[in-house]
Amino acid sequence: MNKYFDYASTTFMSDENIQLYGKLLDKYKYNSESLYPNGINTDNALSRARRMIAEQLNVNEKEIIFTSCGSEANNMAIKGVALARRSKGKHIISTVVEHSSVENSLRWLEKYLDYEVTLLEVDQNGIIDVDKLASVIRNDTILVSIMMVNNESGAIMPIQQIKNIVKKYPNCYLHVDCVQALGKINVDLSDIDLASFSAHKIYGPKGSGFLMKKQHVNIAELISAGQQEFHLRGGTSNVAANVLLAKLVCDATKNLDEKYRQVKVLHDYLYDKLADIDNVVLNSTKEGLPYIINFSCLKISSQVMMNALSAKGFEVSAQSTCDSNAAVSKVIKAMYPRDLQRQKGTIRISLSENHTIQDCEQLIEAIKECVKQYG
Amino acid sequence: MNKYFDYASTTFMSDENIQLYGKLLDKYKYNSESLYPNGINTDNALSRARRMIAEQLNVNEKEIIFTSCGSEANNMAIKGVALARRSKGKHIISTVVEHSSVENSLRWLEKYLDYEVTLLEVDQNGIIDVDKLASVIRNDTILVSIMMVNNESGAIMPIQQIKNIVKKYPNCYLHVDCVQALGKINVDLSDIDLASFSAHKIYGPKGSGFLMKKQHVNIAELISAGQQEFHLRGGTSNVAANVLLAKLVCDATKNLDEKYRQVKVLHDYLYDKLADIDNVVLNSTKEGLPYIINFSCLKISSQVMMNALSAKGFEVSAQSTCDSNAAVSKVIKAMYPRDLQRQKGTIRISLSENHTIQDCEQLIEAIKECVKQYG
Repeated sequence: MNKYFDYASTTFMSDENIQLYGKLLDKYKYNSESLYPNGINTDNALSRARRMIAEQLNVNEKEIIFTSCGSEANNMAIKGVALARRSKGKHIISTVVEHSSVENSLRWLEKYLDYEVTLLEVDQNGIIDVDKLASVIRNDTILVSIMMVNNESGAIMPIQQIKNIVKKYPNCYLHVDCVQALGKINVDLSDIDLASFSAHKIYGPKGSGFLMKKQHVNIAELISAGQQEFHLRGGTSNVAANVLLAKLVCDATKNLDEKYRQVKVLHDYLYDKLADIDNVVLNSTKEGLPYIINFSCLKISSQVMMNALSAKGFEVSAQSTCDSNAAVSKVIKAMYPRDLQRQKGTIRISLSENHTIQDCEQLIEAIKECVKQYG
Repeated sequence: MNKYFDYASTTFMSDENIQLYGKLLDKYKYNSESLYPNGINTDNALSRARRMIAEQLNVNEKEIIFTSCGSEANNMAIKGVALARRSKGKHIISTVVEHSSVENSLRWLEKYLDYEVTLLEVDQNGIIDVDKLASVIRNDTILVSIMMVNNESGAIMPIQQIKNIVKKYPNCYLHVDCVQALGKINVDLSDIDLASFSAHKIYGPKGSGFLMKKQHVNIAELISAGQQEFHLRGGTSNVAANVLLAKLVCDATKNLDEKYRQVKVLHDYLYDKLADIDNVVLNSTKEGLPYIINFSCLKISSQVMMNALSAKGFEVSAQSTCDSNAAVSKVIKAMYPRDLQRQKGTIRISLSENHTIQDCEQLIEAIKECVKQYG
């Protein structure tokens, strides 16, 4: 029985991958920049890992930059482009529902470097209005940063239409936070200049991620140091983690359609059952990513509901775990700005292909009991 | 027989610690910001790790900020202070022999934020002139960043005298890169505002480190994101690595005097034997950190010597591994700016308490043979 319904927060490494990681830590213990054979072997393993990831994502191996996490990749993309292109313009466009690492990188640029940031609103589906994007983008807009899939609502952003708009502005790059998309939907990186990825969302260790940066894109480095990662990310390479990450990216992108169909069945079951419960409203749409279902109990606060479910062994969250101490979910607030009840009672269920219909049935029973008890 | 003489480049995790790391990866697999018991347990483990490190270093637990490596800690300290204190002044003092993560953080500030950087020269002992520091420090100097121990020469900087000078300037913070010092000499953090540390130099994994930042010090965050690390370092916490790091810091600071004495014997043996070889000159002084010996073969280039030793199974380096592709060592160049022969023939031996006198005897034999063959 799998009672963990918080896969969007983090996933767990398999015993097999923990074992493998241990072996890799021993095998690639040398400094990859050392010039003797053991160093060179380690560097070769790093290059192979880079190539494997690049092949999976259909980009060049020089376009993969290993980082310590998805948040670092988002920071590196946004601050890096802003610093390198400050002579071209100081305007950036993003959305009100981005992950905190995007949101706060933008605030950092406003605060310390006088950038102007335009944040696009979202509708009740959690999706931006592309016409609005087209109307606010300017010749001095140097970057548009929009996530592929929202981590709280599961909303899938209209990336193709966004690409078509950004393409018309040669000064402007497109950055896409793909952290919640990889392994769940097809990630097409064509016409995307920069994209961020995390290991711990695809059954890997914390402390590992990468940035895809197309070769034509110049960025300032975020962590300045030595010659590692094309001089763009200093610090002794974490080769064992990166080799494991390459395997995980391959695993994640396998059988995408099959996993999707499987999770879609669970999603639709939960969605319909939740819709039937009194005083429960769905925040995510049926058309969003099936891995995430967001709902609100109109008469029960998120905290009470989470605790009640937790007492029954079920683990869910109210919002992005990076912001778990915030009063309400900024994403649901953006989708329903005037509906305080919704905002206060938000619950996010996030699924994996490991869940069964029985797991979901038990979750629904538990939610029903909690609603009865506290609602 | 231990033929690895490059411990300043990286150290190797013990089998026991790899096993432990695997267990910790499983035990602390949850997101530490999750609000249900498994998340809270994980967060508690993180807090305990933070407290353990703080106790070892005699600072407050709120003064330990986990990072992904020592380079990140250096970047965070330097860029973070510069951004937060830009209204107080835009002048920073450092030295010409700092690690690339310090050097290039300073260049980044010059390039992108118009900071003025004064780099202090070093003498033939690899040490700065403190009178010179006293003469160049100004009221608008916001930061002095000087390493405790040099990673190539083993020179120990006069930190106490530096503290006394910086203390007179209330606008100015002192940052000390302690990456090569921890576990080798006593690291006294009194009157130091910020200090950087790395796990992989003390037998830990790559991808782990921390910044000590005193509570009175305001910095801008380098990796903006969620509520982690007092809102100063976003990204899902790498709890397993941080718990292991706490153990490693405790291990590293145990029996310091005994380890030092043991390594000092090996150092002095190597030092004297090297001094006896024709056309070999010592670059490090006998009074420096015994864990590092730097010498030059005046008639053999670093690359030829490294390859020749490598062919005999001995692993040494020519300079900081993060800069291993650079033409010559910047540290030896700074110590002997006019001595091209020295610069071209630099070799760094770095020791551990695991070496035996027999290991060192064999290394000396190998060096002698190489000098004979190529010199």
